[in-house]
Amino acid sequence: MKNNKALVFSAHAADFVWRCGGAIALHQARGYEVTIICLSYGERGESAKLWKQDNTTTPMVKQARKEEAEKAAAELGAHDIIFLDLGDYPLDLDRESKYKIVDIIRKVQPDFMLSHSRFDPYNTDHMYTTEIALETRMIAQAWGHNPGEKVLGAPQLYLFEPHQTEQMGWVPNVFLDITEVWDKKRKAIECMEGQVHLWNYYTNLAENRANHFRRNSGGQAGGRPAKYAEGFQAVFPRCVDEL
Amino acid sequence: MKNNKALVFSAHAADFVWRCGGAIALHQARGYEVTIICLSYGERGESAKLWKQDNTTTPMVKQARKEEAEKAAAELGAHDIIFLDLGDYPLDLDRESKYKIVDIIRKVQPDFMLSHSRFDPYNTDHMYTTEIALETRMIAQAWGHNPGEKVLGAPQLYLFEPHQTEQMGWVPNVFLDITEVWDKKRKAIECMEGQVHLWNYYTNLAENRANHFRRNSGGQAGGRPAKYAEGFQAVFPRCVDEL
Amino acid sequence: MKNNKALVFSAHAADFVWRCGGAIALHQARGYEVTIICLSYGERGESAKLWKQDNTTTPMVKQARKEEAEKAAAELGAHDIIFLDLGDYPLDLDRESKYKIVDIIRKVQPDFMLSHSRFDPYNTDHMYTTEIALETRMIAQAWGHNPGEKVLGAPQLYLFEPHQTEQMGWVPNVFLDITEVWDKKRKAIECMEGQVHLWNYYTNLAENRANHFRRNSGGQAGGRPAKYAEGFQAVFPRCVDEL
Amino acid sequence: MKNNKALVFSAHAADFVWRCGGAIALHQARGYEVTIICLSYGERGESAKLWKQDNTTTPMVKQARKEEAEKAAAELGAHDIIFLDLGDYPLDLDRESKYKIVDIIRKVQPDFMLSHSRFDPYNTDHMYTTEIALETRMIAQAWGHNPGEKVLGAPQLYLFEPHQTEQMGWVPNVFLDITEVWDKKRKAIECMEGQVHLWNYYTNLAENRANHFRRNSGGQAGGRPAKYAEGFQAVFPRCVDEL
Amino acid sequence: MKNNKALVFSAHAADFVWRCGGAIALHQARGYEVTIICLSYGERGESAKLWKQDNTTTPMVKQARKEEAEKAAAELGAHDIIFLDLGDYPLDLDRESKYKIVDIIRKVQPDFMLSHSRFDPYNTDHMYTTEIALETRMIAQAWGHNPGEKVLGAPQLYLFEPHQTEQMGWVPNVFLDITEVWDKKRKAIECMEGQVHLWNYYTNLAENRANHFRRNSGGQAGGRPAKYAEGFQAVFPRCVDEL
Amino acid sequence: MKNNKALVFSAHAADFVWRCGGAIALHQARGYEVTIICLSYGERGESAKLWKQDNTTTPMVKQARKEEAEKAAAELGAHDIIFLDLGDYPLDLDRESKYKIVDIIRKVQPDFMLSHSRFDPYNTDHMYTTEIALETRMIAQAWGHNPGEKVLGAPQLYLFEPHQTEQMGWVPNVFLDITEVWDKKRKAIECMEGQVHLWNYYTNLAENRANHFRRNSGGQAGGRPAKYAEGFQAVFPRCVDEL
Repeated sequence: MKNNKALVFSAHAADFVWRCGGAIALHQARGYEVTIICLSYGERGESAKLWKQDNTTTPMVKQARKEEAEKAAAELGAHDIIFLDLGDYPLDLDRESKYKIVDIIRKVQPDFMLSHSRFDPYNTDHMYTTEIALETRMIAQAWGHNPGEKVLGAPQLYLFEPHQTEQMGWVPNVFLDITEVWDKKRKAIECMEGQVHLWNYYTNLAENRANHFRRNSGGQAGGRPAKYAEGFQAVFPRCVDEL
Repeated sequence: MKNNKALVFSAHAADFVWRCGGAIALHQARGYEVTIICLSYGERGESAKLWKQDNTTTPMVKQARKEEAEKAAAELGAHDIIFLDLGDYPLDLDRESKYKIVDIIRKVQPDFMLSHSRFDPYNTDHMYTTEIALETRMIAQAWGHNPGEKVLGAPQLYLFEPHQTEQMGWVPNVFLDITEVWDKKRKAIECMEGQVHLWNYYTNLAENRANHFRRNSGGQAGGRPAKYAEGFQAVFPRCVDEL
Repeated sequence: MKNNKALVFSAHAADFVWRCGGAIALHQARGYEVTIICLSYGERGESAKLWKQDNTTTPMVKQARKEEAEKAAAELGAHDIIFLDLGDYPLDLDRESKYKIVDIIRKVQPDFMLSHSRFDPYNTDHMYTTEIALETRMIAQAWGHNPGEKVLGAPQLYLFEPHQTEQMGWVPNVFLDITEVWDKKRKAIECMEGQVHLWNYYTNLAENRANHFRRNSGGQAGGRPAKYAEGFQAVFPRCVDEL
Repeated sequence: MKNNKALVFSAHAADFVWRCGGAIALHQARGYEVTIICLSYGERGESAKLWKQDNTTTPMVKQARKEEAEKAAAELGAHDIIFLDLGDYPLDLDRESKYKIVDIIRKVQPDFMLSHSRFDPYNTDHMYTTEIALETRMIAQAWGHNPGEKVLGAPQLYLFEPHQTEQMGWVPNVFLDITEVWDKKRKAIECMEGQVHLWNYYTNLAENRANHFRRNSGGQAGGRPAKYAEGFQAVFPRCVDEL
Repeated sequence: MKNNKALVFSAHAADFVWRCGGAIALHQARGYEVTIICLSYGERGESAKLWKQDNTTTPMVKQARKEEAEKAAAELGAHDIIFLDLGDYPLDLDRESKYKIVDIIRKVQPDFMLSHSRFDPYNTDHMYTTEIALETRMIAQAWGHNPGEKVLGAPQLYLFEPHQTEQMGWVPNVFLDITEVWDKKRKAIECMEGQVHLWNYYTNLAENRANHFRRNSGGQAGGRPAKYAEGFQAVFPRCVDEL
Repeated sequence: MKNNKALVFSAHAADFVWRCGGAIALHQARGYEVTIICLSYGERGESAKLWKQDNTTTPMVKQARKEEAEKAAAELGAHDIIFLDLGDYPLDLDRESKYKIVDIIRKVQPDFMLSHSRFDPYNTDHMYTTEIALETRMIAQAWGHNPGEKVLGAPQLYLFEPHQTEQMGWVPNVFLDITEVWDKKRKAIECMEGQVHLWNYYTNLAENRANHFRRNSGGQAGGRPAKYAEGFQAVFPRCVDEL
């Protein structure tokens, strides 16, 4: 039996749902344990609908976002979801918070990691999260950090799909067929009651990425009939013994 | 039993040896049939040693380069090597020559293709070869080209390592462990009697690429102990059902 | 009354429909005259469905593609559609064909032009078309080409959206609201009977581009409620007297 | 009557004069209210002439720079100039300072913003200022930041022209004709008594950018006869209903 | 005594004057022999003023452009100027024309070469010229091309400054102080009677490039007091024994 | 006699040896004084071998790394080596530490500086070091920083070769022949007893970079017979009076 692990960096509570919900559900179904780290609840920047209501307070928004995210994670069958509550707009981590993330990385020992695109002029929290992912990955590899702990190997870092990909300089180099878990992703999406306007958007996107999948897996002459897909940009080279 | 195929584009007769000899030998060992197309013999531009001898003629150079390349291909166990004799420095293909390549592509029906880097200010034949590889791949996919023939699917195109990678804008996103076939590659290299000064160069390179392989397959904490490797840049996204 | 003109370069007969059908219909509705040049019928490369039928011949395919394209152009209300029948897969223009295009450019005197993305590893005809667009734009500006004719000014060249934008290095810097003409574009799309699998794809895309439109025209706080949009990459700087 | 607003980020006190003085004066003339934020006085890094005098102190330099900048802003007719006095060489903002900027952005509610280039190996304060511009723009859009305040929409961010554009990776995609306000810009430039060696430089530049303006607005065949222009790089896509 | 050589590729007759006239004059003054190849007279595309006159014919334009260019070359003290009369708008060289250029390269045996920028959406002749420069440089290095002739070494290729540098992706990595030969360059510029509107433009540019020179050779603290400079982008790495 | 100076930024204690040991030894041999700043000892991240021993403590690791680095610096003949002990994995400098570096820069008054590549997804300390190098270079140029001190001119910044160059976006534009000091570099390398697996790697690399040197200094037809070389990427344009 497989004993693989994956680790997802989500700047705000909902990011993991739209951007890699399929990958989470699929790898769980394949026997992976997928852990999600939400750096913040997105309580300031991505909770417009809640703030438009009367008498809203920050703790109320955090609680609502937390519940939504937990419900979505459950729909995806995620192994674990961890909320670091580091504050958003802007995210800004001190050394201690970074070490907390390193602890999680070392405990999980992921085979691969997922995070945001490297550039995002609309949302600097997103690109900052990937800076942190790279920095904490490096620290987790250091023999001199908490000597005696098991250090991290060299897991791949996949950048999941940002909004408006072309403005972010994000280029997918792998498409993942998520057809078999699409229903789970759609249910997770529907947990995001504050962002109904995005449900259709990400359904369209998954259908169109499946078109790209089919185009690259066989083109006009055939190819696996994926109906829903997600795209990712692998940061590091792959190591193989067959092309 | 596997029935896979690969197709290599070599601008000049010797390019395939230095740049992807390991991949050829390895895939043959894995049950692939690897076909090599040499667009030219490299008789004008890459045969300095022969031309420095007295009384050299073009047919003599072509013959010598052909023999060397065939010997190297045999060392690598390549399934087939085809010489199109299209002339070098510069390569410049007419429509008929392109169609001849399309015929080969369709006959081989490769699972993947290999060619040069996309940019090369030192050697315009190299980048032109990849333009041709992309163009003929497209034609081979067209139902209206020689209707009735089996059209091509959507094979990956891997760009093998150019000389002075950084000047060519070439970035490897996959490293291939060629340790088990290194002896064959070295023997193929030693067939290149006119370019003895490059033997050590490409041995150094294979050792150093193995270091990169190890760095990406596990880092300081371990990783597969590859001793020789080759790097490639995949042009198209991969399609997977597990990251 | 306006007397503006636009000119569309379409490598194959159907390209203009998917990629800028909205822009064509919208500008016609705004009083522009939009002329479409189809460099080829796409008879070899983009007519798979027709070629899968028995007894298909090249003239039959050309005729079918021509009829489809004309019907689509009529749905969009295009002023004119010109078929140059230069052959596809690959397109390769001689000097005379280029001059024929220059004649059209000069006759139309477009305020702006539309063409394909600058790079396309899947379809070299597409990027070649934009090379031709730039080259013929330049010739049309030359006082010494057919002296006495009215030379071209400096029209903007917009690159319309390719398939798999990220692989093409295409980055939209303008979004066009095509909501008011969406029905016309959808009808034009439905003229493409050989490519039913793309109808939904381009509808999804138009909806998602409208999301991008709204995001950039006001963000979460509002913005014009575009429902369908198209993206374009302007090649040349704009000249304005107000930012 | 128009009620438009613009907001300028100036790392040091004088940057706005050289780089977008024309835009400021022109938009004021068009009925905009243009507010300038000077993050620092440039008292350490860009006041060499003052520091070469005897007995100079930091307060003296700040005062002199402030007076110069105010005088220049007055020549341009700017609506307001705000000095945050955050220190230069290097600029480094804490959370409180960022929120102070957010307050200004929300109060101004700009239709567009102006800032430095994204990269500058000569002057890291410049690129840092644009990081701050993007970050504070994002915070200003957050419903959860100071709930109840009017949030920001999605104003364009224009990057004004840096020194040595090519080294900064700055590419102008819009040229602004500033001919009608050139006299004001020149007078504002002449307020910069410490940098006389740059007066001619920026006059040359404005003339040459006007050449670029003419080249793109009609080429050799004509075009608006701009005599002075400024270039800008828009960060975000435009949203239009006519190309 | 020095016996150095340089070779300039000029797409059209006047290009060398504006873009590297200073380099030509300076190296002649330093004991170099500088040869200029004009691929065309620019008779179609860059002779608007002549074509606007009555009864102009192509031979008349060629003759006028040739005289101007010769006069300018003489002002610069160029060793030789060669007109290949290959036609412009568009330039398109056959194999024979390429070999003619190879003959010149081998005869000159340049220590360095000069050509246009690699990209130019406004003028495809310019970028094509640099493609040709790289291709003929490669052929000239081939021992199998006209065996027995002296082959070319590996001269640097400098790309001189295009119009609108940022749109061309041109980035200067070397600035040349041309102060001592500025008068010659200005006189050569004044030979271009058909393009009076550019005299001031290129004077401004030379002054501003001198500012960049000073900025990089010592910054605010001093630096060589160059008054006029030209910028170049070296294509190939330098080889040194001291940084 | 020469009185030149150079300054090397080394993120961790050993970086300077592998990446620019040849440049250090060579410039010392040419009469330069080369000062090395080690920002950290690399005690956490680059001392795996020491940490694998029992009872290792941080002070022990620091001491061991310091001794190694001093020994290596001595082999290279470096003028001075300064350990700032700022901590690694991650490096994160406060204002005071930056000013300490500025003090060193001003004291040394380097003719050129050396640092890491601009991007490094494997090791964020490396790219951070170059951010610091650029930032402190800027501060050192400011007349208002410690007024009265001699300000810095505009020294070139060379980026030395990172591991896995292509992943770092590093492109060498200068190769330095280090043949005459190779023995010193090899001896310095052999001081790194904790990283024996890298000795061969960097020897291979130096041999292969010499091949690149020869290729660019004369190509197949000759060129200086360098046997060992190092590559560098100059950040700023050069200023010359001869190309």
